[in-house]
Amino acid sequence: MSGGACTGQKVEGNLVIIGGAEDQRDEKVILREVVRLAGGPSARIAVMTVAAEDQEAVGRQYREVFASLGAGGIDLVNIETRAGAFDERNVAMLAEATGIFFTGGDQLRITSLMGGTAAYRELHDAYRRGVVIAGTSAGAAAMSGTMIIEGGGRESPMNLATRMSPGMGLLEEVVIDQHFAQRGRIGRLMLAVAQNPYVLGIGIDEDTAIVVGARARFRVIGSGTVTVIDGGALTHSSVSEQELYRPVSILGVTVHVLAPGYGYDMASRRPIAQSNAPR
Amino acid sequence: MSGGACTGQKVEGNLVIIGGAEDQRDEKVILREVVRLAGGPSARIAVMTVAAEDQEAVGRQYREVFASLGAGGIDLVNIETRAGAFDERNVAMLAEATGIFFTGGDQLRITSLMGGTAAYRELHDAYRRGVVIAGTSAGAAAMSGTMIIEGGGRESPMNLATRMSPGMGLLEEVVIDQHFAQRGRIGRLMLAVAQNPYVLGIGIDEDTAIVVGARARFRVIGSGTVTVIDGGALTHSSVSEQELYRPVSILGVTVHVLAPGYGYDMASRRPIAQSNAPR
Repeated sequence: MSGGACTGQKVEGNLVIIGGAEDQRDEKVILREVVRLAGGPSARIAVMTVAAEDQEAVGRQYREVFASLGAGGIDLVNIETRAGAFDERNVAMLAEATGIFFTGGDQLRITSLMGGTAAYRELHDAYRRGVVIAGTSAGAAAMSGTMIIEGGGRESPMNLATRMSPGMGLLEEVVIDQHFAQRGRIGRLMLAVAQNPYVLGIGIDEDTAIVVGARARFRVIGSGTVTVIDGGALTHSSVSEQELYRPVSILGVTVHVLAPGYGYDMASRRPIAQSNAPR
Repeated sequence: MSGGACTGQKVEGNLVIIGGAEDQRDEKVILREVVRLAGGPSARIAVMTVAAEDQEAVGRQYREVFASLGAGGIDLVNIETRAGAFDERNVAMLAEATGIFFTGGDQLRITSLMGGTAAYRELHDAYRRGVVIAGTSAGAAAMSGTMIIEGGGRESPMNLATRMSPGMGLLEEVVIDQHFAQRGRIGRLMLAVAQNPYVLGIGIDEDTAIVVGARARFRVIGSGTVTVIDGGALTHSSVSEQELYRPVSILGVTVHVLAPGYGYDMASRRPIAQSNAPR
């Protein structure tokens, strides 16, 4: 991988990409891991609610759950406009954070409000320093170089019905999809991979996350599975021939379903069985 | 394939397996093909409503649509009990049919009411003679040697959450799932394949069908896609290790998405591109 996944300083992982609807009441396995990776009692977590419509309510909710998990400090970063993404106080909160958490909402709000701003540069600087960056749902989708912004669930892959857009680029050469099994999204992710089999499709179920660590490896945590769609052996697809919004053929894709404890090496494109998964 | 797919006399195809919700109002592409294969004006179609709860209403509906497509004769075969599956009039209708069509409903009604009866033997005899056998939804699921009777849609593959049962065995070495994209069923079909990668998983979308012809080949018709799950290269799954109802890992599955016009060779397990698909 050419992206940040290789450059993180921490071996344990500094990207936590969550498929949405993570448990916030019981074991809180995923959010607990975010806090742990960010430093536990010494963690300072910046909650980025930029994707959400009601930023205050979502911010309060995550402040509560991160506090319950013993995070040392929690800052709510409220960005409603592009001006807000240049606001010095907001940028300072990112500069001081040991963990930055993007909530759900609309991924296009994240990139259209933050792209190219001071906060955006600070986010990437923080990531390079090894600060833990986590995101759920829209916050997960926006992690990749190209992100899905729209596309049918529960339908056959229909030509170019999956709309994509430039993402935050924290993890390159992948396209991430969330609420994956729950919203029947394999068709749209297959289509994204067929459009350029160079990218790896990563479909993350609800209450499930990948923790990306050094050397472009990730491990799965949570209660569902992660589906990896590898188009490396794809022999033929009709995406460039077929009419718009008509079903397309996609032949010879390799699929791995990874349960919690399993991992994946994105550089070699190989799954990692349970006992060998990176911690 | 060791099953009936190899033994049909017709080259064009004598199994039509439909993913449910086939168009009955507009072009009726799939049902039109059923009538054509069964002989068009000289077709005599036996409509098997055994899977349905309200057999009369479903029978009337299909009588109307097959009549509108110019089928020469239409018999409604009403089997409500096992005694009905020994009824001479019912068996005679099967013996005279050039096409036998199974409606939707509950696939377990088909096999539990018909299995081992005179009607069941007549059905298999008819199939061997080259009579066209078609089925939609439950009628499609029941075609395979092992059929799925229950299992979550839109969820991660959960260990042994997919319940299976012996099917009618017209197409062996496969497991068929229907309403495939629409009900987000890839997880449960993946699980079925992982339980014995010898079987091929065939997921058929709504208003989409496979027409199985000679030499275990099929072609896709309709408006959606057919997803083939080939576990031949599967390297590892945790189905035999994992606890019940917990997510399982399934590594190294090959998946093909086939749009209408494409085909698949079940014997060699190879997709057939559009121009080469059997007619």
